[in-house]
Amino acid sequence: MRAEIIATGSELLTGGIAETNSVFLAGELLDIGIETVFKTIAGDDEKDLEEVFRRARERVDVIVITGGLGPTEDDITRKSLARVLKKRLVLSDDALKAIKAVFAARGRDYPSANDRQALLPVGARLLQNPAGIAPGFYLIEEERFIAVLPGVPSEMRAMFLHGGLRQALVEHVGGKTAYRRKVLHTAGLTESKVNELIQDIMQQKRPSVGLSAKDTGVDVRILARETSRQRAMALLDRTESEIRKRLGDAVYGVDGQELEEIVGALLVQRKLTLSVAESCTGGLIGARLTNIAGSSDYFERGVVVYSNRSKTDLLGVPADLIERHGAVSREVAAAMAKGVRERAGTDLGLSVTGIAGPGGGTDEKPVGLVYIGLATGAKVKVNEHRFLGTRNQVRQRSAQTALDIVRRYLIS
Amino acid sequence: MRAEIIATGSELLTGGIAETNSVFLAGELLDIGIETVFKTIAGDDEKDLEEVFRRARERVDVIVITGGLGPTEDDITRKSLARVLKKRLVLSDDALKAIKAVFAARGRDYPSANDRQALLPVGARLLQNPAGIAPGFYLIEEERFIAVLPGVPSEMRAMFLHGGLRQALVEHVGGKTAYRRKVLHTAGLTESKVNELIQDIMQQKRPSVGLSAKDTGVDVRILARETSRQRAMALLDRTESEIRKRLGDAVYGVDGQELEEIVGALLVQRKLTLSVAESCTGGLIGARLTNIAGSSDYFERGVVVYSNRSKTDLLGVPADLIERHGAVSREVAAAMAKGVRERAGTDLGLSVTGIAGPGGGTDEKPVGLVYIGLATGAKVKVNEHRFLGTRNQVRQRSAQTALDIVRRYLIS
Repeated sequence: MRAEIIATGSELLTGGIAETNSVFLAGELLDIGIETVFKTIAGDDEKDLEEVFRRARERVDVIVITGGLGPTEDDITRKSLARVLKKRLVLSDDALKAIKAVFAARGRDYPSANDRQALLPVGARLLQNPAGIAPGFYLIEEERFIAVLPGVPSEMRAMFLHGGLRQALVEHVGGKTAYRRKVLHTAGLTESKVNELIQDIMQQKRPSVGLSAKDTGVDVRILARETSRQRAMALLDRTESEIRKRLGDAVYGVDGQELEEIVGALLVQRKLTLSVAESCTGGLIGARLTNIAGSSDYFERGVVVYSNRSKTDLLGVPADLIERHGAVSREVAAAMAKGVRERAGTDLGLSVTGIAGPGGGTDEKPVGLVYIGLATGAKVKVNEHRFLGTRNQVRQRSAQTALDIVRRYLIS
Repeated sequence: MRAEIIATGSELLTGGIAETNSVFLAGELLDIGIETVFKTIAGDDEKDLEEVFRRARERVDVIVITGGLGPTEDDITRKSLARVLKKRLVLSDDALKAIKAVFAARGRDYPSANDRQALLPVGARLLQNPAGIAPGFYLIEEERFIAVLPGVPSEMRAMFLHGGLRQALVEHVGGKTAYRRKVLHTAGLTESKVNELIQDIMQQKRPSVGLSAKDTGVDVRILARETSRQRAMALLDRTESEIRKRLGDAVYGVDGQELEEIVGALLVQRKLTLSVAESCTGGLIGARLTNIAGSSDYFERGVVVYSNRSKTDLLGVPADLIERHGAVSREVAAAMAKGVRERAGTDLGLSVTGIAGPGGGTDEKPVGLVYIGLATGAKVKVNEHRFLGTRNQVRQRSAQTALDIVRRYLIS
């Protein structure tokens, strides 16, 4: 089955903003056997939207539209789609009830302008919005499946996965096609290194294997397109284990798993606790670790020791040690890791100190120089890194590498 | 003039990769008076590409195509476009010379497979590629401007700016229309509230004013399209100041400015320092504040007090206060803000404690309940919030609101 994903919104057409909802949707659709063949973006203009909806109806079997479901004047998706489908818009009681329930839960007065959001084309089925107000909907006309989702990424995702759309699509497709895909996430290898290690596998046509380099590592994408689910799965499994053999410990997770999830699961499994002392990463590592529900079981505390005084106050790093070696040094990283571990009373203590830039670098200590310390029991190990890139990239790479050092320690 | 940007390449349709060339191109086109009204992505399939090229020809004045200019089998942009335009492909001597020159400059043998890259539709003009091999081209047929660029972002940019395309487009457009655009970022208002406040301005046709809701606030986009630069600028300025009058303090920045930038600039201006105690946000606020170069001038320290013990150890929050009111309470938020301010010796102390979910909520203290405290001098003020959404949304909204509370204090 062939799909077109349509994103609406003038903000996507004036530069500055990349459209990303369709990246999520295309992956999800592929998982249930629907291949995206077109993506289209149009602005908040009725004529242009109608033109795009009309074309999509002529050329694909599944249409997924995002955006333009808000309560305001320029939210015209419902209206334009209804006109193209030659269906009236009617007020859905269920939709209205759902919207009012959200306002009630927030303890806010219900503004009647929001009534507009409960208008659905005749025959449409309501999709729940677990993350916001705007309800979505889908309808099937002449074998063609048309779904409309909100444009806010978190709402779009929640509605696709948990609001009823994924399930409705699975039923509609009936499992005739057989795609399997998997993404392996790696840390600590460059793109050319990964390419070198699996070049021969990438040159085979089945399955298709590609690389994408991100700021925090390299992803290996495997896509098997076969005549049955079993075949696709077998081919994918075989290829995955061959790639894992070549890349070893560098593979930390699959399909969107984050390093902090893996580290968290390993800490739970090993019954260990962690505390973190951050300088140049400024809280990034703490923010990532605590984004995982249940992280309070293993994450005791973090300190963001931006000033020298705070390093001494909160971690007991001797002022003369900072004086002698500088705040960005192997010695201070070691003292930070030991200090946070001891004061928090955790099994592990992680520390990061470095020069994120753009200013503050010298010949001896250039921008991108970062020390990462890990205190375990009586021992502390410090690694020196030199990261390239902008301030933000240096910080992201430092946080990723620090988490990867914890992961490698936990599996060793 | 209305434009469509078409990106080709199957890798853009299987999930995992966002298309970003068009973000650059749409901004550049707007600057020279060309409005992008559609963006389309199609895969490496001749029929699908032809369908997309045909539609674009029917509906816009300017078409910019990226990708599919390589030397391999699946690089079919040239062929498909030539078929739609009913033009033959002919070997361009100039293109061939340019390609061979790149190989010579790199000291590599010339593979004859690359001859294919020198094929251009009859009547096309060559565009130089200052950053790679594939030559691009453009042609004007029946007043319609059609350009084809490579898909590699660095080559696409270089060709647009320095390979001759920008200049050719400026000449084609003739400077008849002038566009000015601005985005106002707001915090603390819902989309319906913003809509209510500026509805009449949004209903005017000139300039066009639209809203986009994000997890952290609502953006107001203004686009002025006039017959001269002066007129467009004047209209934009007038509309901006009217909108600012209506929205008041809610507008915190323009054109991609982040709240942490604004807060940082205000702290520098007022010569004040800040420290932060985070519970449910886990380091997010620290990470955002320190993403700004120079933040060490005003950000002294942060603590991520995830456990009760750490709240007592690091901030001096009395254990019996936590016992009596719970870690998520107005009283503990106040003690955290005061504690971090005093211990860090800063002018301001900011605190956040809440229930991010998905677990941990009760009837009395539901998921999304968040207290934000700000200690200033001897005073401390605590706000209670109820945020909706996933764990990540609650955390993001808490961090944004906390920063906004600091901003509002600093400008009051």
